[in-house]
Amino acid sequence: MTKLWGGRFQKSAENWVDEFGASIGFDQQLVMEDIEGSVAHVTMLGAQGILDSKDVEQILGGLAELKLAAEAGELEFRVANEDIHLNLEKMLTDIIGPVGGKLHTGRSRNDQVSTDMHLFLKKRVVEVVDLIGTFQKTILHKAEQHVETIAPGYTHLQRAQPISFAHHLMAYFWMLQRDKDRFNESMKRIDILPLGAGAMAGTTFPIDREKTAELLGFSDIYPNSMDAVSDRDFIVEFLSNSSLLMTHLSRFAEEIIIWSTDEFKFIELDDAFSTGSSIMPQKKNPDMAELIRGKTGRVYGNLIGLLTVLKGTPLTYNKDMQEDKEGMFDTVHTILGSLKIFEGMVRTMAVKTERLHQAVHSDFSNATELADYLAAKGMPFREAHEVTGKLVFTCIQRGIFLLDLPLVEMQNESKLIEQDVYDVLAPEAAVRRRNSLGGTGFDQVRLQIEKAKALL
Amino acid sequence: MTKLWGGRFQKSAENWVDEFGASIGFDQQLVMEDIEGSVAHVTMLGAQGILDSKDVEQILGGLAELKLAAEAGELEFRVANEDIHLNLEKMLTDIIGPVGGKLHTGRSRNDQVSTDMHLFLKKRVVEVVDLIGTFQKTILHKAEQHVETIAPGYTHLQRAQPISFAHHLMAYFWMLQRDKDRFNESMKRIDILPLGAGAMAGTTFPIDREKTAELLGFSDIYPNSMDAVSDRDFIVEFLSNSSLLMTHLSRFAEEIIIWSTDEFKFIELDDAFSTGSSIMPQKKNPDMAELIRGKTGRVYGNLIGLLTVLKGTPLTYNKDMQEDKEGMFDTVHTILGSLKIFEGMVRTMAVKTERLHQAVHSDFSNATELADYLAAKGMPFREAHEVTGKLVFTCIQRGIFLLDLPLVEMQNESKLIEQDVYDVLAPEAAVRRRNSLGGTGFDQVRLQIEKAKALL
Amino acid sequence: MTKLWGGRFQKSAENWVDEFGASIGFDQQLVMEDIEGSVAHVTMLGAQGILDSKDVEQILGGLAELKLAAEAGELEFRVANEDIHLNLEKMLTDIIGPVGGKLHTGRSRNDQVSTDMHLFLKKRVVEVVDLIGTFQKTILHKAEQHVETIAPGYTHLQRAQPISFAHHLMAYFWMLQRDKDRFNESMKRIDILPLGAGAMAGTTFPIDREKTAELLGFSDIYPNSMDAVSDRDFIVEFLSNSSLLMTHLSRFAEEIIIWSTDEFKFIELDDAFSTGSSIMPQKKNPDMAELIRGKTGRVYGNLIGLLTVLKGTPLTYNKDMQEDKEGMFDTVHTILGSLKIFEGMVRTMAVKTERLHQAVHSDFSNATELADYLAAKGMPFREAHEVTGKLVFTCIQRGIFLLDLPLVEMQNESKLIEQDVYDVLAPEAAVRRRNSLGGTGFDQVRLQIEKAKALL
Amino acid sequence: MTKLWGGRFQKSAENWVDEFGASIGFDQQLVMEDIEGSVAHVTMLGAQGILDSKDVEQILGGLAELKLAAEAGELEFRVANEDIHLNLEKMLTDIIGPVGGKLHTGRSRNDQVSTDMHLFLKKRVVEVVDLIGTFQKTILHKAEQHVETIAPGYTHLQRAQPISFAHHLMAYFWMLQRDKDRFNESMKRIDILPLGAGAMAGTTFPIDREKTAELLGFSDIYPNSMDAVSDRDFIVEFLSNSSLLMTHLSRFAEEIIIWSTDEFKFIELDDAFSTGSSIMPQKKNPDMAELIRGKTGRVYGNLIGLLTVLKGTPLTYNKDMQEDKEGMFDTVHTILGSLKIFEGMVRTMAVKTERLHQAVHSDFSNATELADYLAAKGMPFREAHEVTGKLVFTCIQRGIFLLDLPLVEMQNESKLIEQDVYDVLAPEAAVRRRNSLGGTGFDQVRLQIEKAKALL
Repeated sequence: MTKLWGGRFQKSAENWVDEFGASIGFDQQLVMEDIEGSVAHVTMLGAQGILDSKDVEQILGGLAELKLAAEAGELEFRVANEDIHLNLEKMLTDIIGPVGGKLHTGRSRNDQVSTDMHLFLKKRVVEVVDLIGTFQKTILHKAEQHVETIAPGYTHLQRAQPISFAHHLMAYFWMLQRDKDRFNESMKRIDILPLGAGAMAGTTFPIDREKTAELLGFSDIYPNSMDAVSDRDFIVEFLSNSSLLMTHLSRFAEEIIIWSTDEFKFIELDDAFSTGSSIMPQKKNPDMAELIRGKTGRVYGNLIGLLTVLKGTPLTYNKDMQEDKEGMFDTVHTILGSLKIFEGMVRTMAVKTERLHQAVHSDFSNATELADYLAAKGMPFREAHEVTGKLVFTCIQRGIFLLDLPLVEMQNESKLIEQDVYDVLAPEAAVRRRNSLGGTGFDQVRLQIEKAKALL
Repeated sequence: MTKLWGGRFQKSAENWVDEFGASIGFDQQLVMEDIEGSVAHVTMLGAQGILDSKDVEQILGGLAELKLAAEAGELEFRVANEDIHLNLEKMLTDIIGPVGGKLHTGRSRNDQVSTDMHLFLKKRVVEVVDLIGTFQKTILHKAEQHVETIAPGYTHLQRAQPISFAHHLMAYFWMLQRDKDRFNESMKRIDILPLGAGAMAGTTFPIDREKTAELLGFSDIYPNSMDAVSDRDFIVEFLSNSSLLMTHLSRFAEEIIIWSTDEFKFIELDDAFSTGSSIMPQKKNPDMAELIRGKTGRVYGNLIGLLTVLKGTPLTYNKDMQEDKEGMFDTVHTILGSLKIFEGMVRTMAVKTERLHQAVHSDFSNATELADYLAAKGMPFREAHEVTGKLVFTCIQRGIFLLDLPLVEMQNESKLIEQDVYDVLAPEAAVRRRNSLGGTGFDQVRLQIEKAKALL
Repeated sequence: MTKLWGGRFQKSAENWVDEFGASIGFDQQLVMEDIEGSVAHVTMLGAQGILDSKDVEQILGGLAELKLAAEAGELEFRVANEDIHLNLEKMLTDIIGPVGGKLHTGRSRNDQVSTDMHLFLKKRVVEVVDLIGTFQKTILHKAEQHVETIAPGYTHLQRAQPISFAHHLMAYFWMLQRDKDRFNESMKRIDILPLGAGAMAGTTFPIDREKTAELLGFSDIYPNSMDAVSDRDFIVEFLSNSSLLMTHLSRFAEEIIIWSTDEFKFIELDDAFSTGSSIMPQKKNPDMAELIRGKTGRVYGNLIGLLTVLKGTPLTYNKDMQEDKEGMFDTVHTILGSLKIFEGMVRTMAVKTERLHQAVHSDFSNATELADYLAAKGMPFREAHEVTGKLVFTCIQRGIFLLDLPLVEMQNESKLIEQDVYDVLAPEAAVRRRNSLGGTGFDQVRLQIEKAKALL
Repeated sequence: MTKLWGGRFQKSAENWVDEFGASIGFDQQLVMEDIEGSVAHVTMLGAQGILDSKDVEQILGGLAELKLAAEAGELEFRVANEDIHLNLEKMLTDIIGPVGGKLHTGRSRNDQVSTDMHLFLKKRVVEVVDLIGTFQKTILHKAEQHVETIAPGYTHLQRAQPISFAHHLMAYFWMLQRDKDRFNESMKRIDILPLGAGAMAGTTFPIDREKTAELLGFSDIYPNSMDAVSDRDFIVEFLSNSSLLMTHLSRFAEEIIIWSTDEFKFIELDDAFSTGSSIMPQKKNPDMAELIRGKTGRVYGNLIGLLTVLKGTPLTYNKDMQEDKEGMFDTVHTILGSLKIFEGMVRTMAVKTERLHQAVHSDFSNATELADYLAAKGMPFREAHEVTGKLVFTCIQRGIFLLDLPLVEMQNESKLIEQDVYDVLAPEAAVRRRNSLGGTGFDQVRLQIEKAKALL
């Protein structure tokens, strides 16, 4: 078929070649942004007298029609027209005739597609930040209910010290806060207009980029047209930020999965967020948590994919850059879905407080208390650590815990140990006394929650 | 809605949760393989007397109907039925009633999906190997036409030594040969049956896995059921092999792009494999080469994506593994398309032999000849290198080439240089004399082409 | 040998196991930061009365000694002491006796190592930002010299439109500006104190984290101790930002390499930034540009490496996290070196202005001028594009350029073309007239340079 | 300083530029291979009469001296001499005078370095395969001891069906077997000689590559000199194979870590493979398993790093390729160490058989037995699944297990259930009856172990 850029060509590509090169299969997701950008562009062209008002009116009329059709899902895109830009332009000229061709005055597909991407991502990042906020609220709410729920705290997945379960949950609040900050900061580089850069050198038409920026709600304008059409930093940055977000979700997911095991049983997921097995009738699987953990892979993959695309490409636009879109769309879809699911999963999960209570009362996570107790009485910490280690070993051999050990036996290892050691060894005390700033002490956790609330 | 595994559950998932977990959106690409696997499974169940012949007949009838519908593209998949397996089972029972439920006897979705993937990839790898072979033939054919076309050979993208253009093309033949070897070798780990592994522990039914393997044409059977359901090596290996293939194509693409520049002009791509610009009427862009270079990114991304999914997952099946599919489908699609396009692009490209001829006659790529000439006359190579370097520098300063330099001036640097040096410095001689095994000498290149032909 | 944490253990690890687990081989790079952190910690312990002033004095004395030895490169680290923390503690107690053990009161290696990393990266990011600034200045300076140097501008590595060479260079200025912004923004998440988080739950000692933060110059304090010891976001973010920086350098490097070819010859690198060949005496290779392009790979690799490490790890500290360091050290080293080299390479490179001038006068990069000319006269742009395409094709067939085409022949395609077309087609005019905001027009480029200067 | 390739240059690089470009810091690891390659090369040169026997003798003498010094660790490499090749050549001429320069006749650093890498990797892959074999033997030995140790089998980290613990261990045997196969197959592409390819076009000297190959023990010779100097496939392939190996180790590591928790307690690691905490005296951390899980990241990173380096590089040698080495060295070091550690960890770990026994007797992992029991009696499997699901739910509500449920209550759900159901529900029976090929049935596991033994 006849290409819109075919004047210099003697031969058309075969269909299967066209199909390989066409982006309409995925860039149709930019349909609203492409129309939006065209409306602003033609309005500016009119305001500058580059197009006369009659032409502008006709074009705006055609675009309005296309917008309605797009909203109704009635547009039919054709591979033969390559991409969203040429598809829409073809539809426009079908409606309003050759005057539609004037819409492309003073712009190129190079600045046009980049503008679409900026518009698209601007909207999506707002949604992402919003969903992160919702998830943070759920975590906060859950934490408020469990300030005094004592649970084992882990390092190396080995019980380390007893903690407030709220404290554990709040760790994710802060990770998400950093995610939000990063997404917000990236906005500075998303909220910037490329349109007006033309193919890459600017244009000879007396366009007004500030006007276009204003119409489209952009805060800034690319100061260099070559950079404007070849910059994909803002997408890489989005993928990087999304990778970190997914890293956090993958860590939380891992914990949800471990906590849901028969062996831990610290939580029970709601049936609505679990699935069964086609063969094992007893199964209740934390599928959603596993799936989100797994989806971390595709987001990392999308990041490395785009970095690879960009590596070593000379200025300015190269066709390689068409590969910027699918990974971005996929990532948007993945993180919005993952956040929504995770929020629901955490909101509806039941925390098994009794089981947690029992857990901290039958382990050695209070051993640090003893070491700290000895250090506070003047023993160098390294020695206190050694003494405690020996007492722990004695207990293990006898199948008991530190609270079960008679005072006299403790004193065999150190005379500094007195009756008050038993108060110190109680898990509740262990938590309460860790009242340093940012620590798990109940008062500190309450303070932390207040601080977090103030941020939302 | 009611789940097929819901007996133990009190509450259904909401639709949007279902949607997030459902794989039917993409695993429907396995529809033929899933039916094929079911046909073999139920046939075996009948042969073993696990199902009676009436049931088997009914199920086979239903599956045959589904297959016809699938071929006609008439199946309608529903997110509510999660995945391809449950969709097909639901359709089957809609056709033949509850007896359809017996099909799942002695198998699980865990071994079923893995079987589908093995069947799918087995077919695709054959296609890939086939297309690589076709591309190799095209390269070979092109090379045969250009054995005596002398071109600049490059290191560091700087002209190094004159070469036979056929020799350059043949380098890609051998890269593709390695790709083919790797894909073929990987078949050993693709062509192996997981079915019969059940959920992960095998089954209590007296199944005959050898029978199933025979029916499905598998050469081998997984010897451990836990490995069978959690192994995704064969997909990672496919993605690794595809990454190397794309690396090769990206290198060739880079050369096509560079050769197509105004500055090099070594080749001209056919119009059918080029595109124009919506704004610059003179442009003829090597879009296909750029796009393939760019698509390297998504294949690397798919590889790192799946590796990330698998990292640190405990045995056996985890929902994370559902994420194995889209990257594989996308990679299959990408490499098949890229190979097809690249073959056509190379087949139809015009090699500008005159331009190449002119190029090698106006550069210093014959400098090594002089150094070798001196070394052959007994000068230590390092000294010969030094002497030649000085003569090159003299030429550069005077804007001439080595062949233009009078003998006397050469002799000022070394008395070993005699009249016969001019024969040695001719580009044709430079190529001809590099007749070491695997070198660019015409005879060697012809030998190489014969050797290559024997492999196809 | 005896481990500092061995009280509960009955058996020592063999040497080769120790060696595998030890980090001292690389974390010794944190020696200054580790001492710095200890000084602040023990000062705070004294101020809070947790240690008495005599102990504090002794410890500070020992640390001062260690610092001097470290600066003199006289410390000898031992694998047997695992990591930088235990090595230094051992050395400290060797100097001042068992009182050295009190230094560890109220802290853990978990918050200690994280503090070291924050301190380290804070310093390095300042250096990186500084070097980026220096490089930007060099680019700016080079650009100022070449505002009126006209060069071919490329899309798809095909000549597109003539541009000011300064405009091309300035595109990199803005990429680097974004890099700088990102590194600066990331400081918010680097400049935050983990110390005081203890093993992960805070501490029972009445520490004053605000005091420690003040002593170490941190602007903020981690509000959650579990997050504090398991957060590696700030390193991932550094690696992401470094990946984008390297992407930019790889693009610039690719251009340097292409511009240095015999075929382009747009620039000549200084001998000091080029290398020769051991076998081809004429070679002058853009090795540094190639090497930097190549080093992009290791930075991407370090990024994906750390993301993989973190994926799916439960809270809080896990030994996996020891793997955060080498990739960070390597990346710091790589980007500092690459920036320094690149700055020198650009500063000393010669721009071949005559060759550039000749280039734009013998190509079709002025074709857009003709299309715009026609569009400005009222022809729909799509039609103008078609007409120009035909004229370009005519020229190609006859081996001439648009400026060589007689008016009458142009008028055969469109009567709108008049004598003034030749002014429009001159490359200088093409550049000058592209005077839209951010365009390549000389005035715009001068404006852009002013704007850039204001940012430095 | 004076470069060996400097004849054409007017200016030397500054030291810090040299340092950036130098590879001697890491390629000195190739010292033995470089000498080995030189010995073969010069021997061949002599045999072909390209060098006379006196020269050859002298050079061989010098090389022998260098080899001795290298073995004794007495060579001092200098950054000024760039890389291992020029360092050794300089040392050689220091010993035997200018005749040393003749060693480089008919070769280039391009084919030389590639030869070194092939030689190096050939040796290392043999070591890797060997260590995998040793690890497999340990697994096999451990499995033989635990054929009748019944343990919970998991999907989704939820208890699924009881299994033989040997069966679980053996899953890793087969993964490692695939790893071994892949490494062995890759040898075909490692065991091939590049030397003789010269800078990239072959050489004019009458060399005998077959002779060189024979001397160095290579099975094959690169048939194309351009491919020979620019091929890095064999390293990528090594990194891909290593990535899969690390994936397997990371999965096993995850299980070791989970099994070592207080909550699971299925195994206890030997003290020699565990570490403690500097602050928590009770801790016994599975550090080695965590570290290996973490090291997966660096190997993935090395893979993506090299792929990125190669992407889009034109033929033939480019300096980017110098970046092939560090990732390869690091990966060799990482996988050899990880295999060695993992083998020791598994060999010395204690399996808590009683705890495993207790686990399978207090869960619902026998639910599939009931469903299979009903299906075997003619109930469609889907219905059997539903009935079993209901009985499981009843048990959960009452805090009992299926074996505790009176027959009459079971019969309320289905009359097909009879007294013999209790035999079926016993975990031992569940394992024994899963006697399908590759299943967990004791007989099958024994068969599997025999099959595995035959492979070693």
